[in-house]
Amino acid sequence: MRRQIPEVVVSRLPTYLRALALLKSEGIEFISSRGLGARLRMTPAQIRKDLSFFGKFGRQGRGYSVSRLHRELQQILGLDKTWQMALVGVGRLGRAILDYKGFAPEGFKIVAAFENDPNLIGKKVSGVLIEDIAKLETSLKDKKVDIAIVAVPSSDAQVVIDKLVKSGIKAVLNYAPICVRVSRGVRLQGIDPVLALQGMTFYLARG
Amino acid sequence: MRRQIPEVVVSRLPTYLRALALLKSEGIEFISSRGLGARLRMTPAQIRKDLSFFGKFGRQGRGYSVSRLHRELQQILGLDKTWQMALVGVGRLGRAILDYKGFAPEGFKIVAAFENDPNLIGKKVSGVLIEDIAKLETSLKDKKVDIAIVAVPSSDAQVVIDKLVKSGIKAVLNYAPICVRVSRGVRLQGIDPVLALQGMTFYLARG
Repeated sequence: MRRQIPEVVVSRLPTYLRALALLKSEGIEFISSRGLGARLRMTPAQIRKDLSFFGKFGRQGRGYSVSRLHRELQQILGLDKTWQMALVGVGRLGRAILDYKGFAPEGFKIVAAFENDPNLIGKKVSGVLIEDIAKLETSLKDKKVDIAIVAVPSSDAQVVIDKLVKSGIKAVLNYAPICVRVSRGVRLQGIDPVLALQGMTFYLARG
Repeated sequence: MRRQIPEVVVSRLPTYLRALALLKSEGIEFISSRGLGARLRMTPAQIRKDLSFFGKFGRQGRGYSVSRLHRELQQILGLDKTWQMALVGVGRLGRAILDYKGFAPEGFKIVAAFENDPNLIGKKVSGVLIEDIAKLETSLKDKKVDIAIVAVPSSDAQVVIDKLVKSGIKAVLNYAPICVRVSRGVRLQGIDPVLALQGMTFYLARG
């Protein structure tokens, strides 16, 4: 595989994968870049260019084989295995995350949860034992956790993320609404409803 | 203001705003595009190019005035007013959203919530009355709702979003993990932790 694939291209692959899964479930076997573009509100040229980083998938006149492209994108995205995740922060948001039914079917499994609230430590929520955050480092290693989900209050988020990185975590999904800094080599994705809203008000304000 | 600003540029403005708010809180008065880029892991050229769509903000050698750029971006993004929001779906995720402390300080206010579960209708959660979803259209108009948040199960999401759009809603924040379709002129943003995770596994799988 070629190196130096732009991050923005990688960030679009999951959306392609999602659309292909939907097409598969609808029983559609082939799709053109134009058809895929219409569904995703993107230009066909953009889709073809993005995919060209990873090889040659389509066939002139026939389009992409939905199931083949779906399978190849899964492989490219590293989704041909199960990823072990740990949750830090089991407040209301953390409990909604533990309860979320969307992770498992996509190969993401929450195998550990951490809290500093003594009332929660030792309890089970959605089948996951809540552990003392003081045991973070050893437990993450024991359970071979790949990815951490951070759902602590904003004031604690940076400290928690620093601890996770120190414990060897290389990917963090952060729900706390702050600008977090991580060292190079660590992936960070923020789930931030306010940023998403602010991207829409620009258009609303213009009518 | 010039027309035809690329969506991807608009989508980055909230991140700039967030970084500027942090700089303000740190008491920093001026920042160069290089300094801002270092914080956001972007090139200074990209930041200058993005901002150039909206006017001339920086001064050679001195950089941007943090408070002025912050104020102007707020205005550009339409954040100099309060936006009224409605939540549809008051399950565990919906309750976490109602409870979320990050909306109000940014000018986003949840003024209505809807459910089809008769056990929830008529109750108050985090100070918001839960209404029968059958009353969606009239209530959205009475309360002058600008933005809808969708936190219903995936199987109901498209139907709910169609109803919202029919009721005149022009912006939807969707938490259901599906490919939703909306008509032109309606803004849609998805909050999707799985897509965010899938953008990181690409890198994890490569070590």
